Amino acid sequence: MTYLDHAATTPVLPEVLTAMTEQLGRVGNASSLHASGRAARREAEQSRERLAEALGARPSEVLFTGGGTESDNLAVKGLFWARRSADSRRRRVVVSPAEHHAVLDSVEWLAKHDGADVTWLSVEPTGRVTPEALAEALGDGTDVAVASVMWANNEIGTVSDVAALAAVAHAVGVPLHTDAVQAVGQVPVDFGASGVDALTMTGHKLGGPMGAGALLLRRDAECTPLLHGGGQERDVRSGTLDVAAIVGLQVATTTAVASREERAARLAQLRDRLVAGVVERVPDAQLNGAPLDDVLAGGPGRLPGNAHLSFPGAEGDALLMLLDARGVECSTGSACSAGVARPSHVLLAVGADPDRARSSLRFSLGHTSTDADVDALLEVIAPVVERARRAGMGTR
Amino acid sequence: MTYLDHAATTPVLPEVLTAMTEQLGRVGNASSLHASGRAARREAEQSRERLAEALGARPSEVLFTGGGTESDNLAVKGLFWARRSADSRRRRVVVSPAEHHAVLDSVEWLAKHDGADVTWLSVEPTGRVTPEALAEALGDGTDVAVASVMWANNEIGTVSDVAALAAVAHAVGVPLHTDAVQAVGQVPVDFGASGVDALTMTGHKLGGPMGAGALLLRRDAECTPLLHGGGQERDVRSGTLDVAAIVGLQVATTTAVASREERAARLAQLRDRLVAGVVERVPDAQLNGAPLDDVLAGGPGRLPGNAHLSFPGAEGDALLMLLDARGVECSTGSACSAGVARPSHVLLAVGADPDRARSSLRFSLGHTSTDADVDALLEVIAPVVERARRAGMGTR
Repeated sequence: MTYLDHAATTPVLPEVLTAMTEQLGRVGNASSLHASGRAARREAEQSRERLAEALGARPSEVLFTGGGTESDNLAVKGLFWARRSADSRRRRVVVSPAEHHAVLDSVEWLAKHDGADVTWLSVEPTGRVTPEALAEALGDGTDVAVASVMWANNEIGTVSDVAALAAVAHAVGVPLHTDAVQAVGQVPVDFGASGVDALTMTGHKLGGPMGAGALLLRRDAECTPLLHGGGQERDVRSGTLDVAAIVGLQVATTTAVASREERAARLAQLRDRLVAGVVERVPDAQLNGAPLDDVLAGGPGRLPGNAHLSFPGAEGDALLMLLDARGVECSTGSACSAGVARPSHVLLAVGADPDRARSSLRFSLGHTSTDADVDALLEVIAPVVERARRAGMGTR
Repeated sequence: MTYLDHAATTPVLPEVLTAMTEQLGRVGNASSLHASGRAARREAEQSRERLAEALGARPSEVLFTGGGTESDNLAVKGLFWARRSADSRRRRVVVSPAEHHAVLDSVEWLAKHDGADVTWLSVEPTGRVTPEALAEALGDGTDVAVASVMWANNEIGTVSDVAALAAVAHAVGVPLHTDAVQAVGQVPVDFGASGVDALTMTGHKLGGPMGAGALLLRRDAECTPLLHGGGQERDVRSGTLDVAAIVGLQVATTTAVASREERAARLAQLRDRLVAGVVERVPDAQLNGAPLDDVLAGGPGRLPGNAHLSFPGAEGDALLMLLDARGVECSTGSACSAGVARPSHVLLAVGADPDRARSSLRFSLGHTSTDADVDALLEVIAPVVERARRAGMGTR
């Protein structure tokens, strides 16, 4: 099996599994006052310190959550509610249309349920949100509750200059949230240096467990809780601390961050070979997102493990299933619910027409990826595309 | 170490650890369409079916969440939002003051943030909520969004007749949520037969992992999501399915339910010996909650593993720390935040005075409890209480 879907989830690191198994064998609720409880608390706090250090945050800025979706929901809704409570004029949410659905759907719900006004940011054809676009959307900022722009796009892998965006937002007094689920462990992420007010990250994209994530939240950022109860995590996120998962999240993050530079270089090479090989075999295949050498050219950059391509005249879902039948696993990168194939909202946001959006595949590399994985894809891609094209568009 | 705090969290079952370790070694996002994704989906769906069967629910009624706190928040807020959206007159929330903070604080937030009106149910001295009390509080029900009464109290272990409460609620068209976190695996819980509309359960109280729970939600119950995004779990709870934790939750639940009767009988015997032994050594100790033989007497019942006692003249936190120093771990059962000891809201709700509330300890037994654990407590309880009394009340 050739796994080219690391952006969906990547294998758990052996050291994570060891650490989690050890912690799962211990009893103790980190809120209990006795020795077992205090031992669990120590593990959680040590993990908080290490994770904070790996990401340039202070330990008190780390709030453990159940994953990326929860962190996104908490940041977007919690910052909106807190900022609007403090000043009822702040009803506007400024957000990119290429965000993950956890952000988009939170924003749309706030619009329906809480009277939020949504301002959609313009997005460059590469997928980048520029500081200029954000500045224009924010205006004087007085009516804005929160802005949210992802650090790196989960479909096409485009990296935006989050520090520059945060500076623009702060210039008009608006807090910036960023979904960095795909960025952590792939590109340098320093929470403090970035200036962002809230940052979403999750474990299972970098070798940790599912169901474990964090929201990095600046001490001075007011955020209304989504989950009320025992008052854990600065009273912003209640719920028994899942210490085994937290330890797993921390080990995965520190390991991924420590080995990032070496791995990124290796994956970028693999990825470049993959793209070149695919284009050689399917000459009209089109790369989506930022150019591969974009960083070198001073551009926003692209995740090292991301290759996102459109295959004109072939349907993404058909390509995916044909590749899967040949042992190659990847993703269309599009939201697919209830069996209905829909063109990717990300590709539509960057200006692709629906046909191109529907004909795309995401190949994403990760820590276990090898040259053999790329070879396996290159061996089958041409006949698979040909067959999908014969099957024709719009048959689903 | 003598662990008498199973109601806070109980050791992970060996079979759970095995199942989770196996799943953690596999890659695959249950939303991915390729073979690895479909395999992860199969594991999750098989767990859903088995968990549903163990709890008398249909598979489609099981929504996996990050734990009890999330399930409580989702049920209380989600049902409130959905019911009020359908009819703006429905602003009232009817709830017992002895609920877990995940319910209480959700309700209080709805009151502050969403204009909910809270009606507090009267609670019997045992901790039980009677159908009569609920009927009175509901009135004709037209202005009620949701009612919530826990199946079994987490501090004093009192079991209410949830089926009778659901019948009363439905008679006036009001949905009933119940927090059954402490009930599942300890007393018979049949979701379908109970008639409740939503039921909270969690893994780490019955030998499963932390960070994994479920909300059982009737198909016809409208519930607004708390977490928006990918549309998982009937579009009511988005977020990547944490398959390893879901498998662990399922194995723990099915195991705990299958062995419940035998274990409950064993724990009740241990518990009765514990209470008798403590009262023998500390004659003025007072049992809180329902009498031990309450079920036999036709009463609401009490969790088999729960012993909750007050020690007049001694402070609960001092008792806890003195016992801990002697290797016996238990809980005051009270909310303790930021180091400030507060009397238990549950004991206050059942009519105890603050001194009694402050002088109480919860001993909770679980699957690893033995006679030796009871012996260890009985050996030290008298000198510990004496010493705590000498230290005096109100020194903190």
